[in-house]
Amino acid sequence: MKFIKSRENSTLKHIHKLVKQKKYRNKCGQFVAEGLRTCQDVLLSNLRADVFMCSEDFYTKSMELCLRLENIADEAIVVPNSIFNVLSDTKTPQGVLLVMKTLDKTSDIDKIDYNGKFLLLDNMQNPDNISTVLRSSDAFSVKGVFVTRDSCDIYSPKVVRGSMGAIFRVPFYMIDSAPDFLTNVYSTKGISFAACLTDTAENIKDVIFPANSLVVIGNEANGLSHATINACDRQVIIPMKGRIDSLNAGVAASIIMWEMSANE
Amino acid sequence: MKFIKSRENSTLKHIHKLVKQKKYRNKCGQFVAEGLRTCQDVLLSNLRADVFMCSEDFYTKSMELCLRLENIADEAIVVPNSIFNVLSDTKTPQGVLLVMKTLDKTSDIDKIDYNGKFLLLDNMQNPDNISTVLRSSDAFSVKGVFVTRDSCDIYSPKVVRGSMGAIFRVPFYMIDSAPDFLTNVYSTKGISFAACLTDTAENIKDVIFPANSLVVIGNEANGLSHATINACDRQVIIPMKGRIDSLNAGVAASIIMWEMSANE
Repeated sequence: MKFIKSRENSTLKHIHKLVKQKKYRNKCGQFVAEGLRTCQDVLLSNLRADVFMCSEDFYTKSMELCLRLENIADEAIVVPNSIFNVLSDTKTPQGVLLVMKTLDKTSDIDKIDYNGKFLLLDNMQNPDNISTVLRSSDAFSVKGVFVTRDSCDIYSPKVVRGSMGAIFRVPFYMIDSAPDFLTNVYSTKGISFAACLTDTAENIKDVIFPANSLVVIGNEANGLSHATINACDRQVIIPMKGRIDSLNAGVAASIIMWEMSANE
Repeated sequence: MKFIKSRENSTLKHIHKLVKQKKYRNKCGQFVAEGLRTCQDVLLSNLRADVFMCSEDFYTKSMELCLRLENIADEAIVVPNSIFNVLSDTKTPQGVLLVMKTLDKTSDIDKIDYNGKFLLLDNMQNPDNISTVLRSSDAFSVKGVFVTRDSCDIYSPKVVRGSMGAIFRVPFYMIDSAPDFLTNVYSTKGISFAACLTDTAENIKDVIFPANSLVVIGNEANGLSHATINACDRQVIIPMKGRIDSLNAGVAASIIMWEMSANE
């Protein structure tokens, strides 16, 4: 362990920018996994980290865990509590974080085995919804999640933390355009469903999802674009009795995954 | 409309305490509904308000809406933007709020028609989960929601805002104790189900919910107490393939409501 007491240290500046800036995360190909639960999930998932950093308090109170985290990281540092608190994304920091390499399997996109159930998030903007989708994908064994690059950054501290470790377990892939991907890639692999509120959408209760299928979930406020809907083979709707926007987007996606996995 | 420019005004102090303090809301029997969407939902639900308050900016930009809100309120005030921002619970205030009388129908608890599907939240603590449950209850026509008093305050600004108006449409009732209510009230009205992770719980896919049924959802971290489980007629579980805590509590409750409403 290396003790760092100066805020001017380059590693600390690097971590600070990773926490704050999507662009910088993208450029470096790294992100920050913060918090006790999240770091324990990294251990459980047998992943490695570039940096392990903790506060002095955490170091003295959790020696054993620190040893284990040190073992999976290339660099390990301890900082004063006050410095950790400045770097942290949370109001009540737990004093532990890992800097990790981005996890998306975008470069493997040509090698995907499409036999199974997939999800595509097209311009989903709320970090809570993305983390909910990852958790439910984990719970219902969704085989992979495609995320358009104009969605909320999946590596934002809030999504990583909120996913309760699911981000380390569910394979996901970044794509540029949902219509392009659906037309040029997925169309020969399985049946795609647009989750939308059109009159022509099939009631999800009546749909039997084929073994190879993918559901596209859209933006919280605007749903899916016409281009995306047109690029899909079919359309599904969750019948609601309340107001049209009465379901939270993360909940709607979860019910769809639940139904997709129902006939397995 | 009354223009108030002093922070020492007693109505403003009253609103500030209603936003901040659960105890004060309880004592006064009032709460604050903040934001454009929320206030529009109050109008749609034909409810009345004790106070309508907006910022100077909102007043000049939304004259017509202000007139409508003035019409449903006993008192209407405009304050400088700076004062509104101090009173607001949000980071980017929209400049409009209503003070309303609490909406729970607890005093009508003896007159409930139990023919239908009900939910009971036993010590649920996360405001996001409570608001998600309210939205899904609205979407799936749950007839009423019972909430134990040790749960997160349903009148907290975050729950009210997050419910997207569902709090104005779904009947809900405060109760002191889930086991007492289940044993002494609901046992003669219908069949109660504990949502829990016990070995004896029935797979929710195999359960056909009776016309009169109620599902109890527990605390996010600890689930349901033994006393509550024992007071229920049956137990249900959502089968998961991922980690045991991989479903968000609001999502789990929503899937249960979805399944409850499926055979209607």
